[in-house]
Parts: sequence; C-alpha cells; structure tokens
Amino acid sequence: MHDYPGPALVTLATSLLLFACAAYVGRCRVRFAIKAPATSGHPQFEIAYRIQMNTLENVVLFLPVLWVFAVHLSSHWATALGALWLAGRIWYALAYARDPKTRGGGFLLSMLAFGALGLGGAWGVLRGLIA
Amino acid sequence: MHDYPGPALVTLATSLLLFACAAYVGRCRVRFAIKAPATSGHPQFEIAYRIQMNTLENVVLFLPVLWVFAVHLSSHWATALGALWLAGRIWYALAYARDPKTRGGGFLLSMLAFGALGLGGAWGVLRGLIA
Amino acid sequence: MHDYPGPALVTLATSLLLFACAAYVGRCRVRFAIKAPATSGHPQFEIAYRIQMNTLENVVLFLPVLWVFAVHLSSHWATALGALWLAGRIWYALAYARDPKTRGGGFLLSMLAFGALGLGGAWGVLRGLIA
Repeated sequence: MHDYPGPALVTLATSLLLFACAAYVGRCRVRFAIKAPATSGHPQFEIAYRIQMNTLENVVLFLPVLWVFAVHLSSHWATALGALWLAGRIWYALAYARDPKTRGGGFLLSMLAFGALGLGGAWGVLRGLIA
Repeated sequence: MHDYPGPALVTLATSLLLFACAAYVGRCRVRFAIKAPATSGHPQFEIAYRIQMNTLENVVLFLPVLWVFAVHLSSHWATALGALWLAGRIWYALAYARDPKTRGGGFLLSMLAFGALGLGGAWGVLRGLIA
Repeated sequence: MHDYPGPALVTLATSLLLFACAAYVGRCRVRFAIKAPATSGHPQFEIAYRIQMNTLENVVLFLPVLWVFAVHLSSHWATALGALWLAGRIWYALAYARDPKTRGGGFLLSMLAFGALGLGGAWGVLRGLIA
C-alpha cells in the first residue's frame, strides 16, 4: 500500500465524504427534533438519511474495486477514476439535498467511473492469471 | 495483493452481487412508483430494500475477514470459502425475492463460510504472533 | 498485511462487533415477532436496528482509514487507536440498547480515535509524497 499514495488519498477523501453525510444527518436530527432511533418524521431528514445510505452502499461497492484496480492495473488510473467517482458522489449528495429529482447527473458520473474501475480491475486480475 | 488473484476475483464478484441488489431496488422503485427518498410503499420494494441492506451488512463483515484469512492463512482456501459465501448470498437474495420465508438456507451457508473465514483468519494471525 | 498483526486483529474484532449487532437485531426480530422485511414495530427492535446501522456506517468509515494509517504511519499506533475506537463502539452499542439518550460517551470516544486515525493517515501519506 506504500506504493499507492493516490488511492490512499482517494480512500481518505471517501471516508471524509461519508463522514460529511453522517454529520448532515446528525444536524437534521437536531434541527427537526427527530429523536433516535427514529429515521423519519421530516422530509429533509429523510432526504439526508437516504443520501447517507446511498453513499454508504456505494462506498462499499467502490473501495474494494478501487484497490483491486490499483494493484492489478494502474495506481495512476485508479487515482484518476477514483477522483471522478468522488466528484460524482459529491455532486449527487449536494443535488439530492436540494432536490431529489436532480440526483441523476452525479449518480451517472460515479457509475461510469465505477464501471471503468470494475472492468479494468477484472481485466487486470485475469491478465495476471494468463500471463 | 498481486499474489492473491483468487480473493481479488471474489472481491469483484461480491461488488457485482451488491450492484445487482442495488439495481433490483432501483427497478422496484420505478415499477412500483416509489419516489425517493421513500423506502416503503410496496411489499416487493421493501423486500428488495431488505435484500440490499442485508447483503450490504454482510459484505462489510465478509471482505475484511476474507483478506485477513487470505494473507495470514491461505489464498486458495480464502478463494474456496469466499466462493461458498458468495453462493450462499446469491441463493439468499434469489430465495428472499421470491418468498422471505425461504431465505434461511442461503443465509446459513454464507454464515458457515464466514465463520470458517473468521476462525481461520484469527488462527492465522495468532499463529504468526507466537511463531 | 503480514506485517500488521495488530490492525488485522482489530479488523477481526470489528467484524465480530458488527456480527454481534446483527445477531441482536435477529434476536429482537424473533422476540418481538417482527417478520422480515419489516424494520419497525417495537421500540427495542428499532433501537437494535439503529445500533446495527450506525455501527455499519462507522465500520465503513473506520476500516479503510485504519489501514491507511497502519501502512503509512504506524502499525502500533493504528492498533492502539483502533482498540480505543472499538472500546467506544462497544460502549455506544451497550449504552444505546439500554437507553438511547446515553449513547453520547461511546460515540465521542470512537470519533476522537477515528479523527486521530484520519489526520495521522493523511499526514503519513502526504509526508511520503514530499519525502
């Protein structure tokens, strides 16, 4: 992992994004007086909660594939595609918080980056098996 | 990680399973006209959402233990047990989507594989500390 | 990863904590007769479910940062801060299950450990880029 500073920074930034999503849920919990363990009660709280859960789902998809790609194909391309994925997820979160209907663009961008990482990672591993 | 093509492929396949679960939630969201951020409104959508969340929980349990086992004990056995875990989770998802009451078999299979990975991984790490 | 027995054990223990949270949800599901895919219906079940989800969110934040810190800064300090994080999360889960209002202490402890891991990990990666 010492040889992968780019993916390591993308990993830390991903963690920061997830942390920001959780903090937004916490702020909405206080602002709209939604007592734990409830996860509903105000539309904006429910939006915040969905942003967090969707981000969480996607982080669990993303990080393992990012590292398989980085190790088996290219650390530089993993960093570039990872940064693109991050940009898409930040765009998604900000758009969703303002208006759920506008969340498509960021979602699509992050999905394209994720698809490239998944296909590239699979190719990298299989190429190593054949060679 | 270059020396672990088997666990890397299991990791990519796990990501694909989680992606398929998310896609099924998305399809149910459209088919039953459940607007984000809602996560309820139709029994089949709620089933799809539970499959996704349960798979997510289990992926977060599984992947770290898979890799600790692969590095500290055996890459081959990690691959075999990981494939078994995957088979159990796919079985679970398909059975749950048809009838929630039949989800037990796949769950049990994946839990046995997970237990073996956890115990083997712990043994591998502790053996390394003593030796 | 062979050189990181401490973080590997913290990783396995984290998996065990998450497993215990899932098992508690399962026990509450049976005890209060809440049939899948429902995730509400009894206050204590909802508390168990929130403990599991909050632990899950935090594990996804924690594990990648733990390993970036371990590799780029110090395996020993990663182990120590990771153990502190774990103690905070166990405290959080037990306090939440008894009374949601008392969950603050464990949450704070784990957040401080997480913050130290994140800052230290970022410093470790950036130091490596400059040097």
